[in-house]
Amino acid sequence: MSRIVTVAAAQLGPIQRAEGREGVIGRMLRLLERAHQRGAQVVVFPELALTTFFPRWYCEDLDEADAWFEPSLPSPATQPLFDAIKRFGVMVYLGYAELAWEPDEQGIVRKRRFNTSVVIAPNGEIVLKYRKVHLPGHAEFAEHRQVQHLEKRYFEVGNLGFPVVRAPVAPGVDANLGMLICNDRRWPEAWRVLGLQQVELVMLGYNTPSRNQDNRGFEAHHLRVLHSHLSIQAGCYQNATFAAAVAKAGTEDGHELLGHSIIVNPQGEIIAMAATWDDELIVADCDLDLCELGRNTVFNFAKHRRPEAYTRLVEQTGSVAPAVWTPSV
Amino acid sequence: MSRIVTVAAAQLGPIQRAEGREGVIGRMLRLLERAHQRGAQVVVFPELALTTFFPRWYCEDLDEADAWFEPSLPSPATQPLFDAIKRFGVMVYLGYAELAWEPDEQGIVRKRRFNTSVVIAPNGEIVLKYRKVHLPGHAEFAEHRQVQHLEKRYFEVGNLGFPVVRAPVAPGVDANLGMLICNDRRWPEAWRVLGLQQVELVMLGYNTPSRNQDNRGFEAHHLRVLHSHLSIQAGCYQNATFAAAVAKAGTEDGHELLGHSIIVNPQGEIIAMAATWDDELIVADCDLDLCELGRNTVFNFAKHRRPEAYTRLVEQTGSVAPAVWTPSV
Repeated sequence: MSRIVTVAAAQLGPIQRAEGREGVIGRMLRLLERAHQRGAQVVVFPELALTTFFPRWYCEDLDEADAWFEPSLPSPATQPLFDAIKRFGVMVYLGYAELAWEPDEQGIVRKRRFNTSVVIAPNGEIVLKYRKVHLPGHAEFAEHRQVQHLEKRYFEVGNLGFPVVRAPVAPGVDANLGMLICNDRRWPEAWRVLGLQQVELVMLGYNTPSRNQDNRGFEAHHLRVLHSHLSIQAGCYQNATFAAAVAKAGTEDGHELLGHSIIVNPQGEIIAMAATWDDELIVADCDLDLCELGRNTVFNFAKHRRPEAYTRLVEQTGSVAPAVWTPSV
Repeated sequence: MSRIVTVAAAQLGPIQRAEGREGVIGRMLRLLERAHQRGAQVVVFPELALTTFFPRWYCEDLDEADAWFEPSLPSPATQPLFDAIKRFGVMVYLGYAELAWEPDEQGIVRKRRFNTSVVIAPNGEIVLKYRKVHLPGHAEFAEHRQVQHLEKRYFEVGNLGFPVVRAPVAPGVDANLGMLICNDRRWPEAWRVLGLQQVELVMLGYNTPSRNQDNRGFEAHHLRVLHSHLSIQAGCYQNATFAAAVAKAGTEDGHELLGHSIIVNPQGEIIAMAATWDDELIVADCDLDLCELGRNTVFNFAKHRRPEAYTRLVEQTGSVAPAVWTPSV
């Protein structure tokens, strides 16, 4: 028995601030065609794949930033992508900045902004939508930073949870699909919520500055790739799932984003890795039945998890100082 | 500013079933002396450090297994260890099988068994006790297994949570200390509960068969070391803590346990690693101030965690099948 799906990670090189959608869509179409030639059935693009990583640019009035957002999907600009998805008969993960008119917590319909990803079926339908939960950075202009990271300004925290859905991905093969976006991959809570829904393929895109830009203490440049890989490999192993983790990489207007997109198996092994920090396609055959070993042995959650010992995870947001011990003699 | 503590991982080679406490204690004393010579202030021994890994042996009547358990600490057999701790002025993590007479959930005092670790202060006092929460394996004899793994038979699930305590570890240096035992290290929930208490040094011992012994599907031998390291490195990075992870290694009565003990920094880097699968000491200087960068930036929990999205972690033990999506056209 095996349930093989051929997965492609379609890494994008940099998109400069002045570039429009058309050039980017053209590059994505070429990657999709290449993916089709290599037999891919699922293609994963990066987070915010249609524009530069704009949260590095401060904007006093958010409405001025609307050009970076998609008010609908497909839109005139993204229609060629949907056409190609149908033509090639592939499933696609796409990250984009979402502009939505919908009720807020008070029930008032207003303009809302999310860092969003969707899975698009080969027939062009939206299979699943996810809105990023773990927004890094800050909401106000930060004087101490050389580069801003304003995700908390541009986006609201995702309000769709971490959904998983079972959908056809290849002839005769259904897969349990989940999504994460960028910084989510560093949070084991997010991976576990997906694992508790038997996820078999986690699709995730990222835009990751290759330095910890908070300028508090030193963090060696190369560690950023280690951290990305470590989080993804551990997430896969500990939840017995495949993942395709895909970068927008390279230097955007002088600001470097790391590449090193990877496809990882349920053993936590990297089975494909991008070698450039530019547009690049990597492909791997993923036998979803390999998720069974972990799920039925070491990570049989029903047998081994102890939620009564995990209450701090939900009862507490920040950390607290521990008790102090002093010798009695 | 720096808060440096010199940490030693005191890996033990195999202990055969027929071996008594005395030989083992003698080996531990030699490692302690060597640790002292190398300037160690904290020394971490393995899980169940005083005996062979007995959960591989089936016992119909648990009382017959009492010889593997410690009814008190120190005991006549372990007194020389406590004497050496005082003589060298070091702090020690010790894993052992604990026999306790104490009330159960019904309030009835009875004989209870735990897979336990303690931190022993340089003055011989017990700083902190932990009882293993994630017991792997099974409770009854399993016909399909070539080797038994009866931790769920021999031990009750730990009932002390995942405590962290701040204690002096070096002249002028206090550290936030936490413990895990063996299989706990694969569970990010456990690391996070420690992280939410600002842990700075996780001490953990293990006895890990170098094969997934459940005999369901294939898992390459070498992956077991990858899995151990991956879990520890990710746990350290994602909680901005050091860890000393220490094996009982080598071949016990024909059954192989992996070694590869490591000391890991808050960046998730391995900064010391054992090269043998026998008695071996590795030492690293750990500057606890290095925990600050992660804790104040990427893993500033108060700023970035979203517990409202994590409710499945405690409301659900096992996994559930996801919703099914089918194309509408």
